[in-house]
Amino acid sequence: MIILGIDPGTAITGYGVVRKDPGAAPPVLIECGVLRTKPTQSLARRLADIHEGVVELIARHKPDAISIEDVFYARNVRTTIVLGHARGVILLAAIQAGLDIFEYPPREIKKAVVGNGAASKQQVQFMVASLLRLKTPPQPADAADGVAAALAYALAPGIPKLTDIAKITELEAAVASRSK
Amino acid sequence: MIILGIDPGTAITGYGVVRKDPGAAPPVLIECGVLRTKPTQSLARRLADIHEGVVELIARHKPDAISIEDVFYARNVRTTIVLGHARGVILLAAIQAGLDIFEYPPREIKKAVVGNGAASKQQVQFMVASLLRLKTPPQPADAADGVAAALAYALAPGIPKLTDIAKITELEAAVASRSK
Repeated sequence: MIILGIDPGTAITGYGVVRKDPGAAPPVLIECGVLRTKPTQSLARRLADIHEGVVELIARHKPDAISIEDVFYARNVRTTIVLGHARGVILLAAIQAGLDIFEYPPREIKKAVVGNGAASKQQVQFMVASLLRLKTPPQPADAADGVAAALAYALAPGIPKLTDIAKITELEAAVASRSK
Repeated sequence: MIILGIDPGTAITGYGVVRKDPGAAPPVLIECGVLRTKPTQSLARRLADIHEGVVELIARHKPDAISIEDVFYARNVRTTIVLGHARGVILLAAIQAGLDIFEYPPREIKKAVVGNGAASKQQVQFMVASLLRLKTPPQPADAADGVAAALAYALAPGIPKLTDIAKITELEAAVASRSK
């Protein structure tokens, strides 16, 4: 299974592509990096660049799922609303490509990767490197955050995977038919 | 000149298509309506429906410009951020089609249409009908808000039109060359 993790941003969108094979094998980093937009451009142009960047990543890596950081808080309202615009075009690219979409608040991502929802940026970078057997954390930091989003989905034990949901549905149907 | 006005929303996006000929002739309503999304669908699916709806409107009416309501305030932070997602995919559709994009805060739209930035919804509907020589205001109210956004651009005297900007640049260049 290939997972595209995204840490959305209007100026810098971090991403990480991770492969998770079934069983106990640790996840493997395929690629990570950032999509940068020009501050001199209009918001609409920057959104188009982000959308195009994500479309290109999906075409190149053919992920099964996208795992994207959620932003439903507001330190600065205007910044957060603009960030909503960026998330909008990223979600659009994902659904246009037919990907399964998973969204996690920052706390959940930190908890999945570090085991602590209040972990520092440095702790996240350290654990991302450790989990993926990298010598140094992905650079820049936004790329590491994209990888962390992918890992949140790849590692989270509590999240029913699609195969589990199919299995549960199947078992429930079997139980229902027996009780008739 | 054909203007597509948009009042963005995740559940209901109002739109109005208005033609404004040069000179004193009043603007003419070509079409108005709403794009509705299903509350049972995922946010990503609803965004895809909004994007597709706007793409279809642009293909059908071939507008020169899009005029879209701005949302940089937060009564309810979560709602406003989700609205940012919807605006993101609308701006994307507009720039992908090469349209000129104009954004106005709600106050500016009310001021342009009613002459009062604090006008009520009823006053906006009444003036939209009056300005366009309609017997009744566009229905539903969200459609009227879309039309109002289009009118804000069509009527605003203080907004330099692209032709004006070209003219000013030309005059400034002439002045600069003379003062050498």
